[in-house]
Amino acid sequence: MRDTPYTRVDVAVLEQNLGAMAERARARGVALRPHAKTHKSPDIAARQLAHGAVGLTVATVAEAEVFAAHGFDDLFIAYPLWLEGPRAARLAALLVRGVRLRIGIDSLEGLGMLAAATRDTDRSRVTVAVEVDSGHHRSGVEPERAGALARAATDLGLEVAGVFTFPGHSYSPDGMLAAAADEQRALRCARDAVFAEGLACPVVSGGSTPTTADASAAGGAHDGGADDVLTELRPGVYALGDAQQWELGAVRPESIALSVVATVVSRRVDDDGGLRLIVDAGSKALSSDRAPWASGFGRCVEHPDARIVALSEHHATIAFPPGDTAPAWGKRVRIVPNHVCTAVNLVDDLIAVDDDGTEEVWPVAARGANT
Amino acid sequence: MRDTPYTRVDVAVLEQNLGAMAERARARGVALRPHAKTHKSPDIAARQLAHGAVGLTVATVAEAEVFAAHGFDDLFIAYPLWLEGPRAARLAALLVRGVRLRIGIDSLEGLGMLAAATRDTDRSRVTVAVEVDSGHHRSGVEPERAGALARAATDLGLEVAGVFTFPGHSYSPDGMLAAAADEQRALRCARDAVFAEGLACPVVSGGSTPTTADASAAGGAHDGGADDVLTELRPGVYALGDAQQWELGAVRPESIALSVVATVVSRRVDDDGGLRLIVDAGSKALSSDRAPWASGFGRCVEHPDARIVALSEHHATIAFPPGDTAPAWGKRVRIVPNHVCTAVNLVDDLIAVDDDGTEEVWPVAARGANT
Repeated sequence: MRDTPYTRVDVAVLEQNLGAMAERARARGVALRPHAKTHKSPDIAARQLAHGAVGLTVATVAEAEVFAAHGFDDLFIAYPLWLEGPRAARLAALLVRGVRLRIGIDSLEGLGMLAAATRDTDRSRVTVAVEVDSGHHRSGVEPERAGALARAATDLGLEVAGVFTFPGHSYSPDGMLAAAADEQRALRCARDAVFAEGLACPVVSGGSTPTTADASAAGGAHDGGADDVLTELRPGVYALGDAQQWELGAVRPESIALSVVATVVSRRVDDDGGLRLIVDAGSKALSSDRAPWASGFGRCVEHPDARIVALSEHHATIAFPPGDTAPAWGKRVRIVPNHVCTAVNLVDDLIAVDDDGTEEVWPVAARGANT
Repeated sequence: MRDTPYTRVDVAVLEQNLGAMAERARARGVALRPHAKTHKSPDIAARQLAHGAVGLTVATVAEAEVFAAHGFDDLFIAYPLWLEGPRAARLAALLVRGVRLRIGIDSLEGLGMLAAATRDTDRSRVTVAVEVDSGHHRSGVEPERAGALARAATDLGLEVAGVFTFPGHSYSPDGMLAAAADEQRALRCARDAVFAEGLACPVVSGGSTPTTADASAAGGAHDGGADDVLTELRPGVYALGDAQQWELGAVRPESIALSVVATVVSRRVDDDGGLRLIVDAGSKALSSDRAPWASGFGRCVEHPDARIVALSEHHATIAFPPGDTAPAWGKRVRIVPNHVCTAVNLVDDLIAVDDDGTEEVWPVAARGANT
């Protein structure tokens, strides 16, 4: 018996998810470079590579350091790094160790820092990718500006791998179809802008989990085909799934591999006659991510009609419809977090459970690796 | 130079906050037992005791274990623990080590598990406190039921310390005054119900940061006086402060001791002509807590008119009003998280900065101690 809360991974479901996405990438004729910020786990990353992933995507130099230390040597830091101080030296040290790095850029200023940080290294191991904004309006330049940045990188002696975007505006109901189209349009424009500078653009990288989802589940994925501009997909959440993707329709509930196991510690009947359970997993186990359209602070696997109506640090309040059968004190429930990436980042270990019930402990080796 | 993001504590401000709350508790004639779930730091807890705190409040057995290992031997686990399996043995082990524990209960079922778990220990070190619901509607029984639970505890051979509540519904605009009154009413009713069973009730414990705030700042605190039923306060956030308390008016911005230091990595002009900055602290550094009434995902210390309009895992999008002077690429900004308890739980260390700029590393020893 393991004390709650703990975060469990159903290995068979994980394997199905990894295999299905790898097959979709193969069928689409594109490379798969999963984003490791979702799981932060060398165990899961190794399984992704075993399914044919060409390398990993990470968000920070610290994540790159952790995965490099575990033997992963082809990493895309898909972030417009600002390379000064210790971070610049840490990046250079990764190159010296023989890790191949692709680095995101979205400004001349950031590019200048990257050029300086890599000046004394073997530059054959580093490439740059220009980040473009496809509608999420976070980092990234307007697509037509990608050519100028690629030219500037070349002038500074850095090899250009290509262009990338994160269509994060796909994370909304009915947003998936439009976001997948935006992604294609922005990346085509950016690629053509690089071509217009007389440069090659071998990498055209995109793909959130919604925009790469099984089209029959999501209805929103680009299904590849002759007009597909992407050469590489970078989904992250697909490996484990979460309540956000469930409620978006991008993953089926039976494909969710991660849940937080919690114990019922308190019960009461509310004014509406419905039962309210308190369980011992709160925002410090589930994370407090909640999109405006989410039905609550996560979902109960065994009780799809229940709603998590409130969340404190160590309490989740679960509302059951009047008449519903709710578990007694001491019973355990499995909660799917709204956002798996932030939930995984709260624990030191994942408890990986095989079909026969045997458990393995998978360290979240890159937890908190933010710098 | 330290890589961003990192979480800094201004030691002088922290000390002011600790001293001011200790003085308010003294003036009110009540004990102060700060909630350590806010900081999870033995360094800060030691400073709280140096200011006269009688002990600590924690939320979990795991937090109790961490603070006990650092020599804190008077702990209130203010949570309706469900004590079975390893957790029951871990609790008993704390008692065997000589730690004095007060444990929350809110059901006969939980009480029975507590009695069983402590059966073979020296029960002189353990007391129970009945949790009552004062309007937050989380855990806790109706106040009039406190007497029956106290009687049941006594019948099972457990000493009753008293009653407690968490007036969490104070965390809303204009909610503070009403919540402080609710807290007084519920605790008086609960205490009298214990008295009616012929039992003593030496501890009447309450106090969120808003309901214990300096009345001149908050306008919502109970100011003590002859009708004050509380004997003990358990505020947590007051030590460090956060944007939630700032926007509630419960703390002044100059009293906020904790901020996350981040670097500007991307800039763009939005459709409205305002500048949008992207900094390298996202939900994995700030946490994604956001009350419905919050102005954004945290606040910028040096730019009070800026708003954090979007948050990803490693990006915060900060909107500056048109014409405002915003920092350039590479500049650093300090962001106050919305909720300090969940933000601290994301990092292994706090960087404590003295007035002369010297830095110390304070481990967040109880980070992730959820079980």
